[in-house]
Amino acid sequence: MNINSLDQFQLTSNFFSLTIAAMGAATAFLWLSRSQVSAPYRMAVTISGLVTFIALYHYFKISISWNEAYKIVDGALVPSGKPFNDAYRYVDWILTVPLLLIELILVMRLSHAETISKSLRLGTLAAIMIVLGYPGEVSSDMGTRWMWWAMAMIPFLWIVIELFIGLKASLDHQPAAARGLISNARYLLIISWAFYPVVFILPMLGVDGPAATTFVQVGYSIADIVAKAIFGVLIFAIALKKSEAEATA
Amino acid sequence: MNINSLDQFQLTSNFFSLTIAAMGAATAFLWLSRSQVSAPYRMAVTISGLVTFIALYHYFKISISWNEAYKIVDGALVPSGKPFNDAYRYVDWILTVPLLLIELILVMRLSHAETISKSLRLGTLAAIMIVLGYPGEVSSDMGTRWMWWAMAMIPFLWIVIELFIGLKASLDHQPAAARGLISNARYLLIISWAFYPVVFILPMLGVDGPAATTFVQVGYSIADIVAKAIFGVLIFAIALKKSEAEATA
Repeated sequence: MNINSLDQFQLTSNFFSLTIAAMGAATAFLWLSRSQVSAPYRMAVTISGLVTFIALYHYFKISISWNEAYKIVDGALVPSGKPFNDAYRYVDWILTVPLLLIELILVMRLSHAETISKSLRLGTLAAIMIVLGYPGEVSSDMGTRWMWWAMAMIPFLWIVIELFIGLKASLDHQPAAARGLISNARYLLIISWAFYPVVFILPMLGVDGPAATTFVQVGYSIADIVAKAIFGVLIFAIALKKSEAEATA
Repeated sequence: MNINSLDQFQLTSNFFSLTIAAMGAATAFLWLSRSQVSAPYRMAVTISGLVTFIALYHYFKISISWNEAYKIVDGALVPSGKPFNDAYRYVDWILTVPLLLIELILVMRLSHAETISKSLRLGTLAAIMIVLGYPGEVSSDMGTRWMWWAMAMIPFLWIVIELFIGLKASLDHQPAAARGLISNARYLLIISWAFYPVVFILPMLGVDGPAATTFVQVGYSIADIVAKAIFGVLIFAIALKKSEAEATA
């Protein structure tokens, strides 16, 4: 974790701040708007707000750690000696990624048995994926990084394929008015999730040094805003559409 | 970013504090009053409160950065070496300006298709406007400032003209009781928005030095209070009038 200019430091700081603002705004919006959807969809919206709320907390911690890791001496940036704590991201993901999958499953309003079994299976796979990714993330040995990355990719691909195929199959049972939004949610999920394994392998592809640190931090921030805040608002929009469609059915 | 007197420093600090108080109060008022308007207008009021909530956060950050950028040595003000981070304003605007346009579009209660297409078009134009303004704001080269200012003025004028003409055209479809307020909202929007490009060009007009910094910071603060907090309360008032008019219709 090293950067060499005040500009890179501030760009990253500003992205952390943007992420805090976006997560806070999404949480407030989702929890305030919860009463606008019908009862069966409220838990999906509550959990969507929970995901952004947990991320809000972790970006606060990330931002504080980032500020404490550097100091400005005579206008130049120097490491303070206190290491930047990247583990906050993994602690965040272990909580938010299973919840993200559950909010998507809940808004589909499947049968009770299917909701429970899908949530358990995908939630567990997501937790395994993150636990497998962490030893690679904190290692500076490229062989070790590749090994854990490859292992984490197995549950990752399983989840993505199951969701992509499963959601497509369930589209026919969804109200016509909500199908476009659900289809958007599928693609948003794939695109935002695809970012994480790519950011992970950047240091293994020779992209390293100060600019890479900035790129990784900014990249994860943008991916988190899309995968949590924007995705959460989309889940709310689906819940609203389905509530309206079912009220008039 | 330089100022040379403790008075200028404190005047600016006090305006940041006033803005924090105004944004916090507006957020609480809007979210608490939300249940007083009928269901179709609640999202407009929720989003109005979201805008002041996001601004509240950014004025906290601006205020902290301002305090850390200077220190008082023997009763005189000296820069601390830590730069004042003006980028918080742009991060704020990239989130709040599209939301401001959306709250205005939502309170008009246009057709569903028109609401989506107007929100997407104006929201995107607003984001482009802010992204184009930023490289100019952080440059000290006057030619560069003028170039980015002129580019950002294209989406700016497009938005202002579309809103001003579009809102006038839609006035006939609005309840008679709300027309006066909507007309006020149009003028408030034009007047508060016009402040931003004017503040931007002050340094290019030879208004520079310590007093200009104070003027720019105080100016943006006042513009933000009018464009977000006062405008948000006006949106709430329109929503209330329309709720009442439609209940008796």
